[in-house]
Amino acid sequence: MAGNTFGNLFKLTTFGESHGVAIGGIIDGCPPGLKLDFEAIQNDLNRRKPGQSSIVTQRKEPDSVEFLSGVFEGITTGTPIGFTIKNTNQKSKDYSHIKDVYRPSHADYTYEKKYGIRDYRGGGRSSARETACRVVAGAIAKQLLKKVTIHAYTSSVGDIFLEKPYQDLDFSKIESNAVRCPDKDTAERMISKIKDIKKQGDTIGGTVTCVLQNVPVGLGEPVFDKLHAELGKAMLSINAVKGFEYGSGFCGAKMTGSEHNDLFNADGSTKTNLSGGIQGGISNGMDVYFRVAFKPVATIIQKQNALDSSGNIVEMQGKGRHDPCVVPRAIPIVEAMAALVLADYYLLNKIYN
Amino acid sequence: MAGNTFGNLFKLTTFGESHGVAIGGIIDGCPPGLKLDFEAIQNDLNRRKPGQSSIVTQRKEPDSVEFLSGVFEGITTGTPIGFTIKNTNQKSKDYSHIKDVYRPSHADYTYEKKYGIRDYRGGGRSSARETACRVVAGAIAKQLLKKVTIHAYTSSVGDIFLEKPYQDLDFSKIESNAVRCPDKDTAERMISKIKDIKKQGDTIGGTVTCVLQNVPVGLGEPVFDKLHAELGKAMLSINAVKGFEYGSGFCGAKMTGSEHNDLFNADGSTKTNLSGGIQGGISNGMDVYFRVAFKPVATIIQKQNALDSSGNIVEMQGKGRHDPCVVPRAIPIVEAMAALVLADYYLLNKIYN
Amino acid sequence: MAGNTFGNLFKLTTFGESHGVAIGGIIDGCPPGLKLDFEAIQNDLNRRKPGQSSIVTQRKEPDSVEFLSGVFEGITTGTPIGFTIKNTNQKSKDYSHIKDVYRPSHADYTYEKKYGIRDYRGGGRSSARETACRVVAGAIAKQLLKKVTIHAYTSSVGDIFLEKPYQDLDFSKIESNAVRCPDKDTAERMISKIKDIKKQGDTIGGTVTCVLQNVPVGLGEPVFDKLHAELGKAMLSINAVKGFEYGSGFCGAKMTGSEHNDLFNADGSTKTNLSGGIQGGISNGMDVYFRVAFKPVATIIQKQNALDSSGNIVEMQGKGRHDPCVVPRAIPIVEAMAALVLADYYLLNKIYN
Amino acid sequence: MAGNTFGNLFKLTTFGESHGVAIGGIIDGCPPGLKLDFEAIQNDLNRRKPGQSSIVTQRKEPDSVEFLSGVFEGITTGTPIGFTIKNTNQKSKDYSHIKDVYRPSHADYTYEKKYGIRDYRGGGRSSARETACRVVAGAIAKQLLKKVTIHAYTSSVGDIFLEKPYQDLDFSKIESNAVRCPDKDTAERMISKIKDIKKQGDTIGGTVTCVLQNVPVGLGEPVFDKLHAELGKAMLSINAVKGFEYGSGFCGAKMTGSEHNDLFNADGSTKTNLSGGIQGGISNGMDVYFRVAFKPVATIIQKQNALDSSGNIVEMQGKGRHDPCVVPRAIPIVEAMAALVLADYYLLNKIYN
Repeated sequence: MAGNTFGNLFKLTTFGESHGVAIGGIIDGCPPGLKLDFEAIQNDLNRRKPGQSSIVTQRKEPDSVEFLSGVFEGITTGTPIGFTIKNTNQKSKDYSHIKDVYRPSHADYTYEKKYGIRDYRGGGRSSARETACRVVAGAIAKQLLKKVTIHAYTSSVGDIFLEKPYQDLDFSKIESNAVRCPDKDTAERMISKIKDIKKQGDTIGGTVTCVLQNVPVGLGEPVFDKLHAELGKAMLSINAVKGFEYGSGFCGAKMTGSEHNDLFNADGSTKTNLSGGIQGGISNGMDVYFRVAFKPVATIIQKQNALDSSGNIVEMQGKGRHDPCVVPRAIPIVEAMAALVLADYYLLNKIYN
Repeated sequence: MAGNTFGNLFKLTTFGESHGVAIGGIIDGCPPGLKLDFEAIQNDLNRRKPGQSSIVTQRKEPDSVEFLSGVFEGITTGTPIGFTIKNTNQKSKDYSHIKDVYRPSHADYTYEKKYGIRDYRGGGRSSARETACRVVAGAIAKQLLKKVTIHAYTSSVGDIFLEKPYQDLDFSKIESNAVRCPDKDTAERMISKIKDIKKQGDTIGGTVTCVLQNVPVGLGEPVFDKLHAELGKAMLSINAVKGFEYGSGFCGAKMTGSEHNDLFNADGSTKTNLSGGIQGGISNGMDVYFRVAFKPVATIIQKQNALDSSGNIVEMQGKGRHDPCVVPRAIPIVEAMAALVLADYYLLNKIYN
Repeated sequence: MAGNTFGNLFKLTTFGESHGVAIGGIIDGCPPGLKLDFEAIQNDLNRRKPGQSSIVTQRKEPDSVEFLSGVFEGITTGTPIGFTIKNTNQKSKDYSHIKDVYRPSHADYTYEKKYGIRDYRGGGRSSARETACRVVAGAIAKQLLKKVTIHAYTSSVGDIFLEKPYQDLDFSKIESNAVRCPDKDTAERMISKIKDIKKQGDTIGGTVTCVLQNVPVGLGEPVFDKLHAELGKAMLSINAVKGFEYGSGFCGAKMTGSEHNDLFNADGSTKTNLSGGIQGGISNGMDVYFRVAFKPVATIIQKQNALDSSGNIVEMQGKGRHDPCVVPRAIPIVEAMAALVLADYYLLNKIYN
Repeated sequence: MAGNTFGNLFKLTTFGESHGVAIGGIIDGCPPGLKLDFEAIQNDLNRRKPGQSSIVTQRKEPDSVEFLSGVFEGITTGTPIGFTIKNTNQKSKDYSHIKDVYRPSHADYTYEKKYGIRDYRGGGRSSARETACRVVAGAIAKQLLKKVTIHAYTSSVGDIFLEKPYQDLDFSKIESNAVRCPDKDTAERMISKIKDIKKQGDTIGGTVTCVLQNVPVGLGEPVFDKLHAELGKAMLSINAVKGFEYGSGFCGAKMTGSEHNDLFNADGSTKTNLSGGIQGGISNGMDVYFRVAFKPVATIIQKQNALDSSGNIVEMQGKGRHDPCVVPRAIPIVEAMAALVLADYYLLNKIYN
């Protein structure tokens, strides 16, 4: 109920504040007998971690995960997998200036009002640092899903859009540049844009597109737990996300039925895929794809007005080392959440087979 | 797990196929002592029901709800509220021609593959008829929420958009026309568009905007169950929905932080509200608003190719009485789902106070 | 949360008060493709229903179940199974005398204090009438479990005990007498005891023993959801139950380890079965057996002091038609709850295989 | 679903094997603003820890808990409380002899059959070491419950029973002896019995009685989640428990209604309390009391036959340092689980008030 658990059968519960001792989590329900590829897990963490390139925050955090249980001789045992990631580079003093200040478009004010208390250091629980735990669990979920492939990439930064449909992209190029856009020219323009924005002490939003391939037919549960509803919730639970659309998405709302319907091939596949691989909330075997909108990071290195706890408007300026654009580091998080959703339905579907 | 339950503390479980004996549900967790306004409940059902105007399906269903428990002398008792809505006007024979046929962009194929069996009459469980149960529960949730107001309206049909922001609209005009758009001129253009589309035997998509006002500060649970994540899931669980955005939404992804940040007033309100009334997943007391994209209805009264269960492509033509545009009837459903989300968090929040 | 749902994967939610329009429920998660034996369902309801013999309440209720959804041409479809049982014989006037009175050892007082309102007619929601819904769902669960057999029987009434271990009993004799004790002589003494008690306008307690055979190895989830923990909760949720023990039970607490350990046979079975077929919360393939204690029914046809809502002690006398001993009618309820527990774990176990 | 979570609103999820790096857990839903008494938490851990007296296992484990999150400057923040307890004294080599052996009346066989793999060191996940995490969470729950007092004590060891009712006991004496029985003479006989049993290399069962006082009226949810049903599940989830009864328990099944009914006083309290403080699953303000049966520990220091994974019966002898009687160390675990149950219902009840 308190919102720190995701999933039912493949269930992740996380804990931890950005400036506490450690963050971590428990994965409950991972089936036994899965030989874990620890390098793949750490690799996904590295894709998310700060300091990995010049267009992300320059904080240095190793983000190495320690597994405490649930794995015996490298193989999952079916018991809960506990893990922690130490917070090694927190500079709590960076935050003493915001102890009594609510920063605009941050969660400071709402946490204070909801709980009557908050760990003000670095956003505390509201910090995106929590998403490192999601990446750990998602990396394990990916290994469980084996044949399914999950590829997320940056599809826009500000007003720079990758216009090509995903079918025309080479996913192997996603990791070839710092912004994680598989189209070289667009990537360069995006990187240049982010560098400009950074110079101004400002930040910028963007979108991530994610494609799930080889998803088995039948994943998703009508009526409330439709596959895309759960994917939507998963994505909207990521810090800074403002929107989610799948298949034809908002464009689909402008179309007619005769344009939008996906006609069948004889093998059950469809000639078009405006449905985004899901019918009635259940996967149909076609590619599942969706797009996620991220707002610009709220911490800017410019003077801004804020509110203090006594009701005074005060001038403040962001300090610390922040991301000018959250999207490149969000890629592995989007993938992880997609993997968690699929893993849950994948296990649930075994009941019907 | 099987997906027919929504909510935790104010919990709705529904049952029923479009052409079975009845649909219905159980609302568990409605607090005791709530004097129910049954007329308001029926009124919301009437806003959803078929046959209410010339631009919706001409099926005639009274959709009257019978309460079987949980209410004593008109007042809720804290025990589960069971209710049914009879299926009185089902013409199952209308559907015999699709018994072995998978209609394009319907759930026929995925249900068959997932379950190995389906009630083919009128979409069975995948029919939007199920949403009548949501409207019943949502209408009760609205009564629980008292001060909160929930207004949904049609903000686009095809390429006809209501350009005005919600602040410039008179919500009392929403019910003044068949398309439920509060701007008279735009409404007329939308209605005309739907009539044209209907004449062609085609269908058209659209969007719904929903505004939640007087939402108390503090609703929503970090980190996975953010208020907007649950709203997103709720909306995406409605039949035909392809996208959800709140606050600045997809537009926010094009903006810079200095443009996007909502500066505070001294009373904790904000000068702008690109955040959409939610910070860190928790309501901040400002208006919560969001937009939902609906695809065009898949059943068109034109010849189309479909797939039969033997793997043959067959020609078919939609029969029956279908909506040319689902949006006008979706308005009370969007409101109901929003009410269910808020009621759940409203109850949960009592724990912290 | 509000307590009207049992199970996770095979999930029953019930509604209804004893004197409302109807009681009923929703079974969510029943796998598709199960051909239902409706006669078997009604037969279990008949074993529970009032008026079936001279030693139970003489109320006449047909207790016929109507299925509203989830079944198509006699076969489950995987969608939720909604059902109702009409309340046809309620005599609400029988209860007007207790409108403002809290009967001793009933739930009148606690419901009033918890909810501030109660449906006083016949106990309302606290009436054991609700268990008819459990019997419906349990009867379907039994059909899902196929090979597993579930036998409950009366093992004591007052101080009359069936001394034989279950291995020495012929379960086919359980239904041969009104008290549902498979040993003829003991049954006769129990029946005679109940008749005596009834004559005195009094009631008497008893115990039910239940044996689950052919339970597959591996059902049950450590650590909190051990098979016997869930069975215990299921049994303790039945009206009037005061205790639960499985395997050696309370006697086991007097034993030494060298006496109590169950030594293995080479095939994995055990020579003794003091464990009750469960090790570490997981079934081991041996018979699972347990015993459930029922207190005497609180409604007695004698003068007793009660409390009224103004704080006065008032004299009252039970009216209506009540059971002198609840145990004979509790047999199918115990079986139903056991079946629900097993069905849930049975489905969950598919995930591991 | 995988069984490592207890509770809904005050929710504990645990992880860890007896011989892994660490055990630990996450408490989600603890309300903010609770000033934690860390000494009280450690004190309860010390009451459970090995090596505390001559009648328990002589393993030495400090069992000190480290909190990683959810607490800021000593006060809970409403965010999840993550904690770990290091496994410092595991001697894994002690267990190499049972790598391929299923010990009688242990969980070795069922874990192997369920999961196809097990961490054989010290019972792995099935070890009672996991209960240390419950004690941590329970100690925090006790602090949340403030006015409620929870007292558990040893009420029997083998055939030595503490005959006095709880009303005649001085709870302040519970911790005055190693066996945790508040009656001095009975305690001495129990201790002597355990020492005898230990000399024989054998073990012995016993019972724990627990009394909850100052429980507010109204805790517990009909119909499936009755207060005693949840208490029963909680207790039955503790290692080695075979039975649970509350109030009159199994004795109540021998009584008549006229004997068993608890007559009211004018203030709503009752003259007797055979009901055990619960009516219809809801607390009535009287003392809640219950009794829990523990079987003898299965590891005995005598030669016994066991089964190996190849299907051979092999002779083995328990090694290591085991408890001759589990009951004295189980006292804080019983209390902890009772506190967890109450905390969950206590929070839930806020919704109704």
